[in-house]
Amino acid sequence: MTGRAALMAVGTELLHHGRSDTNGEEIARMLEARGIETDLRLMIVDDVDAIARAVQWASQACGLVSITGGIGPTLDDVTRDAVARAFDLPLVRDDEEEERLAARERGRGRVLTPTAARQADFPAGSEQLPNPIGTARGFLLRRPGDRLVIALPGVPAEMRRMMIEEALPRVAALQAAPGWKGVVADRSVTTRCLKAAGLTEAEVQERLVPLFSDGPSAVNDAARGPDLTILSAAGEITFLARGRQEQVAAVIARAREALGEHVFTETPDEHLEQVVGRLLDERGETVAVAESCTGGLLMGLVTSVPGSSRWFDCGWVTYADAAKERVLSVPAGDLEAHGAVSEPVALAMAAAARRLAVATWGLSITGIAGPDGGTEAKPVGLIWIGLAWDGGARSHRLNLSGNRETIRLIASRVALEVLRRRLRAA
Amino acid sequence: MTGRAALMAVGTELLHHGRSDTNGEEIARMLEARGIETDLRLMIVDDVDAIARAVQWASQACGLVSITGGIGPTLDDVTRDAVARAFDLPLVRDDEEEERLAARERGRGRVLTPTAARQADFPAGSEQLPNPIGTARGFLLRRPGDRLVIALPGVPAEMRRMMIEEALPRVAALQAAPGWKGVVADRSVTTRCLKAAGLTEAEVQERLVPLFSDGPSAVNDAARGPDLTILSAAGEITFLARGRQEQVAAVIARAREALGEHVFTETPDEHLEQVVGRLLDERGETVAVAESCTGGLLMGLVTSVPGSSRWFDCGWVTYADAAKERVLSVPAGDLEAHGAVSEPVALAMAAAARRLAVATWGLSITGIAGPDGGTEAKPVGLIWIGLAWDGGARSHRLNLSGNRETIRLIASRVALEVLRRRLRAA
Repeated sequence: MTGRAALMAVGTELLHHGRSDTNGEEIARMLEARGIETDLRLMIVDDVDAIARAVQWASQACGLVSITGGIGPTLDDVTRDAVARAFDLPLVRDDEEEERLAARERGRGRVLTPTAARQADFPAGSEQLPNPIGTARGFLLRRPGDRLVIALPGVPAEMRRMMIEEALPRVAALQAAPGWKGVVADRSVTTRCLKAAGLTEAEVQERLVPLFSDGPSAVNDAARGPDLTILSAAGEITFLARGRQEQVAAVIARAREALGEHVFTETPDEHLEQVVGRLLDERGETVAVAESCTGGLLMGLVTSVPGSSRWFDCGWVTYADAAKERVLSVPAGDLEAHGAVSEPVALAMAAAARRLAVATWGLSITGIAGPDGGTEAKPVGLIWIGLAWDGGARSHRLNLSGNRETIRLIASRVALEVLRRRLRAA
Repeated sequence: MTGRAALMAVGTELLHHGRSDTNGEEIARMLEARGIETDLRLMIVDDVDAIARAVQWASQACGLVSITGGIGPTLDDVTRDAVARAFDLPLVRDDEEEERLAARERGRGRVLTPTAARQADFPAGSEQLPNPIGTARGFLLRRPGDRLVIALPGVPAEMRRMMIEEALPRVAALQAAPGWKGVVADRSVTTRCLKAAGLTEAEVQERLVPLFSDGPSAVNDAARGPDLTILSAAGEITFLARGRQEQVAAVIARAREALGEHVFTETPDEHLEQVVGRLLDERGETVAVAESCTGGLLMGLVTSVPGSSRWFDCGWVTYADAAKERVLSVPAGDLEAHGAVSEPVALAMAAAARRLAVATWGLSITGIAGPDGGTEAKPVGLIWIGLAWDGGARSHRLNLSGNRETIRLIASRVALEVLRRRLRAA
């Protein structure tokens, strides 16, 4: 694993309440984009001995160790002490940096305390990393065997600037030097993704079984096939393949064939609402929305896309039956005969939204998000989606499982998928 | 740290794309609720040597090591091998379990492969943990010094059931035995929180400075004050205090005084929309909503609360100026003279929503969420919130910073806070 990275997040408060290490997530993606894989991530309390042992161990395992947090002015900031201890190095006070810290404090009418002055201490032999938007400087330490240790502040904005502007350029320069033995950017390894909608995770898995059954033949072996992962989130299924470029290209092509028109993007951060917005924008069309159980979530997704005012003018949340009747003129007879969660009501809502908004498309959702309100005939998770256009309409019935939040989000995304499929077909 | 826990997540796919270890987050909260603190969290690739060294190291550092993932049927599931290697124990095949696995495969018309049969291997001396909803069993290993290692599947639903029903009861029973030297539940340590709205993170910090300046005098010292943390997310500021019960109670009381009526709950998972819903429900009142830039997010929050149909009937998203005029009868003169992002338009939207929905309260948001559309006079982040009631109205002007998503979410939460403050005052 020496060609790879270990990411450590230091801070007792991070371990409380099961928080997540968002710095580590961001750094992993930064490194991945630069051809460096992460093999290890750690979150650890502010304990100098524990951190020192963790740094030792991580640096044996991985050629690049990135540490965030614990380099500030308070007594529980012990990352610099821990790194020095890990490698049996003295901490060296930088007088110029101490004076800069003292001047900063004087400017605020305060005195630099001995505790805060520790921010001018750096492990012997390390290079300082300037902090353009905060106080504490980071550092880069090069160890025998070209092993690298980077220490940065835990404040995300400071971490981000310093990683991109200070740390990573230095790592790249070192990698490019002749005889470099440390962490390497492996440009032949790549990650690609497909995102699909309108299928459950199980259905996607079923369709991709042949790809997985060729699966890993050995662990950490360059000869093995690519690493394949299926992730499901809020109505979108992401298929990830990581490995050698040509292998990944072959796997992605096979997955694309297996998933067909359910694939809506190959861009990891792109969501259905962006794809639908782009399709509407290209055609100069607009969509109006009428929601019941999703209560505004679908419109929230539609308007999350910058520029959505080009394809979305207005919409309604009619939560109560009376509101469906009064505001959207859903026939009282339909509500009585079929109930609010029914095909006729979904279609009436979609048609009314389209008509009242003078839009190309009318899209509606009515359903039972739970936890209460379900019956045997109409259980929690039953959703009707309606789509109306000039001279036509379609409805879709879903039976979703999960909690209220999941059901609402998946229903909203499926409604977008219903529109996307129609836009592609029309 | 021996009285505490280390949580490891095993799986190469977890390290890709900067994913987060949601199992670890959940287990940390489970343990915290049972008086066991987490000092270390790890995510590591499927490499048997690396995992073995990590288990050794974590078990030296912490009395309880919990491992999720890597106990399934494929060749890259190596957690059981790694744990055995870490403690120099043989793996022992359980014939009964192997037969159970084989019968399961036969029932599906398949044969148990040698690779999958490894799920019947357990480190010598470990106790099996049944899996009521999946295939792979976990195990609990007790080591000298009463150090414990727990291994569970990485599938969240299986992990959750087995941790709660199988692993934690065994840990509790061991802890209760006389002479126990391992991980202890420290019931004197507690975490409490306050959640506040209507203040920025910096304003909360400013008000709580006196609490922090008494801050940590020594690291990992029982005599120090409680650990204090301020977290900001989507218009809600959370203040966390963790430490000895009486110290935490004193700090929370002081924070409550400093933050005054901005505090809306002491329940970590409770959000503004739930508090507002409860207040409306208690008073038998309803709210109607008219949104522009937030595009349905505010209603999405309101209707995220189960039972919200008791206080919310309907609402409008009028994104385009023409829709504001046509659907909500906002005077064209106001739109022309002041623009859509203005006090008169916010007030007209709130009044129209209230009138059309026949609701007690009308709540509106109009603003510029960006990234485009800002001007010098009306920059991105400018938001007007309107609140209308029987015989009265109020407006609020915000200047928010951040990206589109942040601005929209904070604006929605501030609108809820505007209503909450009025409900408390009225």
